[in-house]
Amino acid sequence: MNPRTYISVIGPSDASPEVLRIAEEAGACVARAGAVLVTGGGGGAMEAACRGARSAGGLTLGLLYGSSRSEGNDYLDLAVPTGMGEMRNVLVVRTGDGVLAVGGAFGTLSEIAFALKLGKPIVGIGTWTASVGGKPAPIPSAGSARQAVDLLLRMLD
Amino acid sequence: MNPRTYISVIGPSDASPEVLRIAEEAGACVARAGAVLVTGGGGGAMEAACRGARSAGGLTLGLLYGSSRSEGNDYLDLAVPTGMGEMRNVLVVRTGDGVLAVGGAFGTLSEIAFALKLGKPIVGIGTWTASVGGKPAPIPSAGSARQAVDLLLRMLD
Amino acid sequence: MNPRTYISVIGPSDASPEVLRIAEEAGACVARAGAVLVTGGGGGAMEAACRGARSAGGLTLGLLYGSSRSEGNDYLDLAVPTGMGEMRNVLVVRTGDGVLAVGGAFGTLSEIAFALKLGKPIVGIGTWTASVGGKPAPIPSAGSARQAVDLLLRMLD
Amino acid sequence: MNPRTYISVIGPSDASPEVLRIAEEAGACVARAGAVLVTGGGGGAMEAACRGARSAGGLTLGLLYGSSRSEGNDYLDLAVPTGMGEMRNVLVVRTGDGVLAVGGAFGTLSEIAFALKLGKPIVGIGTWTASVGGKPAPIPSAGSARQAVDLLLRMLD
Repeated sequence: MNPRTYISVIGPSDASPEVLRIAEEAGACVARAGAVLVTGGGGGAMEAACRGARSAGGLTLGLLYGSSRSEGNDYLDLAVPTGMGEMRNVLVVRTGDGVLAVGGAFGTLSEIAFALKLGKPIVGIGTWTASVGGKPAPIPSAGSARQAVDLLLRMLD
Repeated sequence: MNPRTYISVIGPSDASPEVLRIAEEAGACVARAGAVLVTGGGGGAMEAACRGARSAGGLTLGLLYGSSRSEGNDYLDLAVPTGMGEMRNVLVVRTGDGVLAVGGAFGTLSEIAFALKLGKPIVGIGTWTASVGGKPAPIPSAGSARQAVDLLLRMLD
Repeated sequence: MNPRTYISVIGPSDASPEVLRIAEEAGACVARAGAVLVTGGGGGAMEAACRGARSAGGLTLGLLYGSSRSEGNDYLDLAVPTGMGEMRNVLVVRTGDGVLAVGGAFGTLSEIAFALKLGKPIVGIGTWTASVGGKPAPIPSAGSARQAVDLLLRMLD
Repeated sequence: MNPRTYISVIGPSDASPEVLRIAEEAGACVARAGAVLVTGGGGGAMEAACRGARSAGGLTLGLLYGSSRSEGNDYLDLAVPTGMGEMRNVLVVRTGDGVLAVGGAFGTLSEIAFALKLGKPIVGIGTWTASVGGKPAPIPSAGSARQAVDLLLRMLD
């Protein structure tokens, strides 16, 4: 088995320019660290992260919402058309050794929750905070994509 | 097709006495409203909700984590052994017309996120709040199980 | 946990009058035996089996292809909108203690194969035979719906 | 999107030396054709196919039964730990543009059935035949791995 690290970058398909910029930088940082980039393979933040990874010579894997590989964005090395809709969010989280969350969509919150549930290291940038009974969920926040990836890699050591 | 309403009650398998009490009352209120109770079919809050529903003459459906029907709790009328692990959380949310969230486990947060993503009405009692960029997610909170079910049924009207 | 037996009746949505007749009788026999009828909840043989079960006072559970409960046929007591497409065939087989296969669609063959793989008792009427290297797969065949259900119940004893 | 062809090679984890030999040669032929090899990522025929593809410089993708990437065989470039058990068979078939079936396990029969159901080109070597009402299912058979891959590629043209 190839011992490479897999990092899942999760974020919305409908993203602001700021979120797209962060996602693209995150993808590039993942690639420079020699890790495989995992995303949902769609547009928006997913596409930006893949574009960043490819520009840095990285490998990208997309786990698609629908059942046709042609739905994937233009920067995927390999794509799996799951046909499972929202359930594929669980696959995206499970496939990563660690998770980097960007932006504020509900799907992203579901992936953060699954990462916490599965005990996967997770770091956020400009994403959800959540708390229950005054106690916040452990979602470390970083100030930049580079810091986020660095922190995540240290958590994975 | 049976026109009954389905309400999913989501909450942790490892729950405090207070959460168990609320879940049981919620199950009873769902049954009294004539709705089908949907849960993950396991222990803790799931079992308490089913016990409450059965005590009030209701119908209970469990969508189980594992692949054996015998894993279900003692208060299920029908059980589906999904064998899908955490992915079954998506099924629990999708099967309900509305969702009532109790307690503070990570799995519950994933179900809240899926309810928001799928546009399902959701009400919480003593559960997660979440926000992004200072904007809270729309998770209405109720002071009691009865108020929660009443509010949810009004949202479904 | 309710100790009832669950029987899955699998067959095509696009079925001949003969297959529909057999499926309806099979559903009625399942209900008369006091077992829960599980199907994919759609039209054709699935609907016929559910109609038969309901006419005999039985309980029917549909595990639907799509993500909306309204896609279910008119004879379902409970329906789970899986949104999983073909993958729900695995759920239909897993939920039954035994499987009764009718007719000759490819989806039915996938369910027969999963039943064999999962070690579930299975009986067929006018359905697939399969063999490899001259060795037939163990798919006992019955001459009528009644004989098929009787045989299946004996296999489950 | 990368325009490469994906070929799924399906076969048992517990395979005879003859099936292993065919699977390995099939993997090598898939790689030489420039296609991505998709398998369930486990042992037996899956591992042999991946070994063959890697020895010919190909790219291999494994869609694993369990939830840990470490369960994958030693010849995977990328692995997705689905945690979905038998349901991942559907993913293996859906991810391929065409399917090559080897050997006679029940899981292989389920994948053949899904390929037929989804309308994916399929070719078999020493695998299942199936028929209903005297009509055989359209599973073209080849005499060698090389002939099978050649035939499959022509079907995909």
